[in-house]
Amino acid sequence: MKEPENHSCQWLITAAVIVTQDDGRRILDNGAVAVADGRVTAVGPVSDFADLSVEKRLDLGNALLMPGLINAHTHVSMTFFRGLADDLPLMKWLTEYIFPREQRLDPDIVELGALLGCAEMLRTGATSFADMYLFEDAVAAAVDKAGLRCLLGEAVFAFPTPASATAEESLARIRRQAERYKAHPRLSVAVMPHTVYTTTPEILAACRDLADDLKLPVHIHLAETRSEVESCLEQHGRRPVAYCRDLGLLRPSTSVAHGVELNDGELDILAQAGVTVAHNPRSNMKLASGVAPVPGMLSRGMLPALGTDGAASNNALNMFAEMSACALLHKVRGLDPTLCPAQIVLDMATLGGAKALGLEGLGRITPGAPADMIALDLSSPNLQPLYRPVSHLVYAASGHEVMMTMVDGRPLYHNGQWLTIDYPLLLKEAAKLKKWAGVPSMPLSAGAY
Amino acid sequence: MKEPENHSCQWLITAAVIVTQDDGRRILDNGAVAVADGRVTAVGPVSDFADLSVEKRLDLGNALLMPGLINAHTHVSMTFFRGLADDLPLMKWLTEYIFPREQRLDPDIVELGALLGCAEMLRTGATSFADMYLFEDAVAAAVDKAGLRCLLGEAVFAFPTPASATAEESLARIRRQAERYKAHPRLSVAVMPHTVYTTTPEILAACRDLADDLKLPVHIHLAETRSEVESCLEQHGRRPVAYCRDLGLLRPSTSVAHGVELNDGELDILAQAGVTVAHNPRSNMKLASGVAPVPGMLSRGMLPALGTDGAASNNALNMFAEMSACALLHKVRGLDPTLCPAQIVLDMATLGGAKALGLEGLGRITPGAPADMIALDLSSPNLQPLYRPVSHLVYAASGHEVMMTMVDGRPLYHNGQWLTIDYPLLLKEAAKLKKWAGVPSMPLSAGAY
Repeated sequence: MKEPENHSCQWLITAAVIVTQDDGRRILDNGAVAVADGRVTAVGPVSDFADLSVEKRLDLGNALLMPGLINAHTHVSMTFFRGLADDLPLMKWLTEYIFPREQRLDPDIVELGALLGCAEMLRTGATSFADMYLFEDAVAAAVDKAGLRCLLGEAVFAFPTPASATAEESLARIRRQAERYKAHPRLSVAVMPHTVYTTTPEILAACRDLADDLKLPVHIHLAETRSEVESCLEQHGRRPVAYCRDLGLLRPSTSVAHGVELNDGELDILAQAGVTVAHNPRSNMKLASGVAPVPGMLSRGMLPALGTDGAASNNALNMFAEMSACALLHKVRGLDPTLCPAQIVLDMATLGGAKALGLEGLGRITPGAPADMIALDLSSPNLQPLYRPVSHLVYAASGHEVMMTMVDGRPLYHNGQWLTIDYPLLLKEAAKLKKWAGVPSMPLSAGAY
Repeated sequence: MKEPENHSCQWLITAAVIVTQDDGRRILDNGAVAVADGRVTAVGPVSDFADLSVEKRLDLGNALLMPGLINAHTHVSMTFFRGLADDLPLMKWLTEYIFPREQRLDPDIVELGALLGCAEMLRTGATSFADMYLFEDAVAAAVDKAGLRCLLGEAVFAFPTPASATAEESLARIRRQAERYKAHPRLSVAVMPHTVYTTTPEILAACRDLADDLKLPVHIHLAETRSEVESCLEQHGRRPVAYCRDLGLLRPSTSVAHGVELNDGELDILAQAGVTVAHNPRSNMKLASGVAPVPGMLSRGMLPALGTDGAASNNALNMFAEMSACALLHKVRGLDPTLCPAQIVLDMATLGGAKALGLEGLGRITPGAPADMIALDLSSPNLQPLYRPVSHLVYAASGHEVMMTMVDGRPLYHNGQWLTIDYPLLLKEAAKLKKWAGVPSMPLSAGAY
């Protein structure tokens, strides 16, 4: 395993194309970025930097440098369930495949799943993510090792889990985590009640109070399915958005995952409250949840974020696939090819994600921003010819063109090598998951043609 | 440029996993495929081949070997328009961006676009495709060089094109192409009238007669949009399917692209006629055409094929992205996660494509089948862990895991190298397209958040 590169020195990184995502959405040909102490210090044409004395140069050649993508909703450890079971009715999938195995969770398996997910995100250009699961200290250990940036969220439930016997215990755990990671440069903590239907009003109020007390953001699955809305109406006399609003959970530091079942009045409430929606198009499609009203968010001046959700319901933690799905899905849903244009979708995956994670300096390459950047190899055949870089990022790239991923000025993946993860060892560990999970037999679905 | 490998010798290819797509949809661990004279001669566990004497061995190691994917509808040369303009109303996109540049087409540019598209398809695991465009002899030259398999279709229009002044001229060209390629091992010819709204009843009848005369398949864009249906009703008093049926165009050797606007009666007609629909989910989404009723096709025992359409409206010729989009789109459209399961979607991209192209031995690794195969690197992080290979092919793979692509027993792409294409030279040629196309200025679509 290689030593990670020293990241306190001053770097000059050059590339054929730089997509800055700055306020003018400038795209530079033959550009350079100067980095020191993990932050961008200057961006401009290479010629501007002729006299700069730097300790290290990284010439990326025929590459496109851009801000790292921000995965605003995932359960990174759930990579251990990738492809275990698909194409099933939701309740059958959950009760027969997912829940029984989640009963056997422990910190080791959560850390292994998280490291695997981190390896995949580094490979496909995500540098930060918001994570909700159990045993988040194990996620933190994996993320710390891999070097990504993460908003950690120990999920709060009304019922016992392998991690916590009660909601109070989860809240105490979050309090400890907030203390433990408060000085960490890349880890932060949020309060993450799981959903409105797996908690109680008292638990949600306690989550709100904890967030107030420690000044933490809140993240919750909200309005994901029609059945969630129906059960909320039945149990609480209100739809999920009004219910959360009345509990004081909707504020600018809150992000909500999914937001599929939102009517116009609810979009107005979320827009006025300054809440960010983390849109998960591939998961919503695969689970047949529905289509979130993203055009309605945009028309209200909201910038949603994008998330992959967990690998159990996607089945990839690939933000390029998510951008593509987002841009395509809303066009066909609205029968309007002008909906969700490429630049807006890229904004969602960068600036929208920064807002969702409460890290607003992220998602752009501008002086002062954390040096969280990725580079794509522009020699890939699917990126030829290159007329408009942003179009390729959303419609043509697969994510596997990523040749370099850097967080905090530190290269974590470069030219096929993971610099912080012992990848061959990780593959061996991943192979053991087959035994841990057991491989369920599923009927063959081929037809009679 | 390397010499292509000799493909007349006997090979033994081994891989950790073989997805055969045979009648039992067998998946072999530690499998082997024997190949001679461009055809599969045997498939089984490696241990079965211990005594076989072979000229060459290709041990793919931790890889998944499977049939090459079949792209049942594209305009391969249109890679030259990739990312030129997106997110526009259809008529504005066509009339301001695409049509003016298509007026300047010539065989050289068509060949360059085709070679670029072939490089991309080899990279992402497509071994065969059906192509409709102008100057198909130039496409044939590129395909012949690259080594893929192709059903060539010179498009027939009622109006003059840069290739043909009249429909009669196009038909004469098709007749010459059929003669020219009739002994070619990998090229075949179809009659491809463009659409019902860009031809006349007389032209469609002439297409049918030519197909009868030369025993060629027919391929046409059909029922792609609502406006096509409306104009057909207005001009011909029937919807497109009835119109084509009455002209005798719907038969088992016919494939139709898109089939978005099909009602139940039309699905019955197509099913009874034995027509194959080439479904293009990403193109239909991007152009906001609508969602083809694929579940309705499957419930009638039809196996649709899958196509990428051209890179102007996708923007990738990546059949893995197409499989994923297909599986996800129909679930969310039907609000049913059991629709379009992974095995069916893989069948569409292999066996369905073979039917669409009229090459029914393709799409499977079985004795006697042409040795058109691809291998995916199973060490990619997005393929961990590996419970069920077919799930990963449809939901987790990006297509860029493809490490080897072989057609007719001849490796064309292997370990990052194109063996039949001078790829560095192709990149240089592709860079010139920017000048040929001219880069239109498009307004920035970033919002005011």
